[in-house]
Amino acid sequence: MPSNDKLFAYNLGEIVPLSEARLHISDLSVQRGYGVFDFVKVQQGIPLFLDDYLDRFYQSAQLMHLEVPLSREELKQVIADLTERNQLPEAGMKIILTGGYSEDGFTPMNPNLLISQLPLTLPSDEKVAKGIPIMTHDYVREVPEVKTINYSMGIRLLQEQKAVGAEEVLYAKNGIVSEFPRCNFFLVTHDNTVVTPAKNILKGITRKNVLLLAGRRYKTEVRDIRLEEVLQAKECFLTSTTKRVLPIVRVDDVLISDGLPGEVSLQLLQDLKDLEEAQMTSPKV
Amino acid sequence: MPSNDKLFAYNLGEIVPLSEARLHISDLSVQRGYGVFDFVKVQQGIPLFLDDYLDRFYQSAQLMHLEVPLSREELKQVIADLTERNQLPEAGMKIILTGGYSEDGFTPMNPNLLISQLPLTLPSDEKVAKGIPIMTHDYVREVPEVKTINYSMGIRLLQEQKAVGAEEVLYAKNGIVSEFPRCNFFLVTHDNTVVTPAKNILKGITRKNVLLLAGRRYKTEVRDIRLEEVLQAKECFLTSTTKRVLPIVRVDDVLISDGLPGEVSLQLLQDLKDLEEAQMTSPKV
Repeated sequence: MPSNDKLFAYNLGEIVPLSEARLHISDLSVQRGYGVFDFVKVQQGIPLFLDDYLDRFYQSAQLMHLEVPLSREELKQVIADLTERNQLPEAGMKIILTGGYSEDGFTPMNPNLLISQLPLTLPSDEKVAKGIPIMTHDYVREVPEVKTINYSMGIRLLQEQKAVGAEEVLYAKNGIVSEFPRCNFFLVTHDNTVVTPAKNILKGITRKNVLLLAGRRYKTEVRDIRLEEVLQAKECFLTSTTKRVLPIVRVDDVLISDGLPGEVSLQLLQDLKDLEEAQMTSPKV
Repeated sequence: MPSNDKLFAYNLGEIVPLSEARLHISDLSVQRGYGVFDFVKVQQGIPLFLDDYLDRFYQSAQLMHLEVPLSREELKQVIADLTERNQLPEAGMKIILTGGYSEDGFTPMNPNLLISQLPLTLPSDEKVAKGIPIMTHDYVREVPEVKTINYSMGIRLLQEQKAVGAEEVLYAKNGIVSEFPRCNFFLVTHDNTVVTPAKNILKGITRKNVLLLAGRRYKTEVRDIRLEEVLQAKECFLTSTTKRVLPIVRVDDVLISDGLPGEVSLQLLQDLKDLEEAQMTSPKV
């Protein structure tokens, strides 16, 4: 349980101390792993790209046949209230919608909405400068376009990941790369084209922003990527809300180029930081 | 939330009223749908085939890298205590093990063990005499050999299932049949061979018992089954802890034989009831 005892959470219709935020065990998340969520980065009290995240959250809910008990404006108000209460300089805001308390342990009932906030640590400058090693695993998520709470595979692989010294697992099914459990994948070709998979992925908000930013400087492609192409790429990186743009320097046993973060990756990280900065000074734009 | 307010549950190390059995929202079942479970039928206070279910439960936990906080003997004692407290004539006992309260919402911690019991209604004689219609869906579970709590697909399909008037969904990937979300599949060929899928399934305890019982009267085969073979079968049925042997009379738009439950299915249901009866009078055998 998070040890920070000064935080508040939104739980079943009210704001309560996070340490008291509980669900009855008949909830369908506990019984059947049934729920959706989203995760927004909050910097100095401002939830970045909030509308994009809320669009995706409502869409995930709809695709899993769950009705969000709050309107978009009500949800924004709760997020503002929580942010104000918690006063975290840099935070992750997690919005979970479960299948609700089920009488028979299988049929969804009135969905339960939970919103919590925890301090967030972004990758250090040192980590970015070094880049990370990753491993691959033959798998594709079952409903990739929906941000469900199902991370059975990603969590089950943590032990193997640690054993081989990898920091993330890249899913590739039948040789076609899709995504990480919590991040999107990009590569840069030797003619500086920025490429990201088109299919079987969760469409990350950071992925969208990075694609837009990349398009200002480089050629971009959204298409299938084969694993062999990854191993021969000039650069690889991942994107996510919490990791921004993080260079990848090794894939399984293969070094990418010279094993150092590439200039395109670092340029896009800087561009993303600038875009976030612009959001904070003028969040409506 | 179950409305029966006289029941007790085992929750985080103690027996409490079921209505008070709660988990903090940092539990990995809520955050990431991470957990395993099993489900035992309890008749007149006797958990049927308990050792088989406990074997599978401990194996599921191990395959998901979760340590059960109770030894097998301790777990049996809790099950006996709960059964004694609840005094249900016919009950389902659900044993859930989650990834525990996670600091970062992703890494498993000390697993949480939850055991609850609810009244159980077995299929009525009328339902058995009529048989059920089912639909098929192109899908295979992601870690089929483990009883994880991930039922995203089965629950997401409930609306479609209702719309087409089906009572269960049979998964078949690339034309090869595997299982239902909560049941195993069997067919009977025109020469009275009883066949059930070999791969990509959770090995049901009822499936095992029915295979043994079938072997006493008929030829049995455990092998791949193509969907076309299902549609041309003499009989089809499903097996599960709560449904025993339930005849299937329609698959998608196709009637199986004359659309009535077959004699082999009904014989095996009777044999299973006799086996359960024997367990109750001599549970150690």
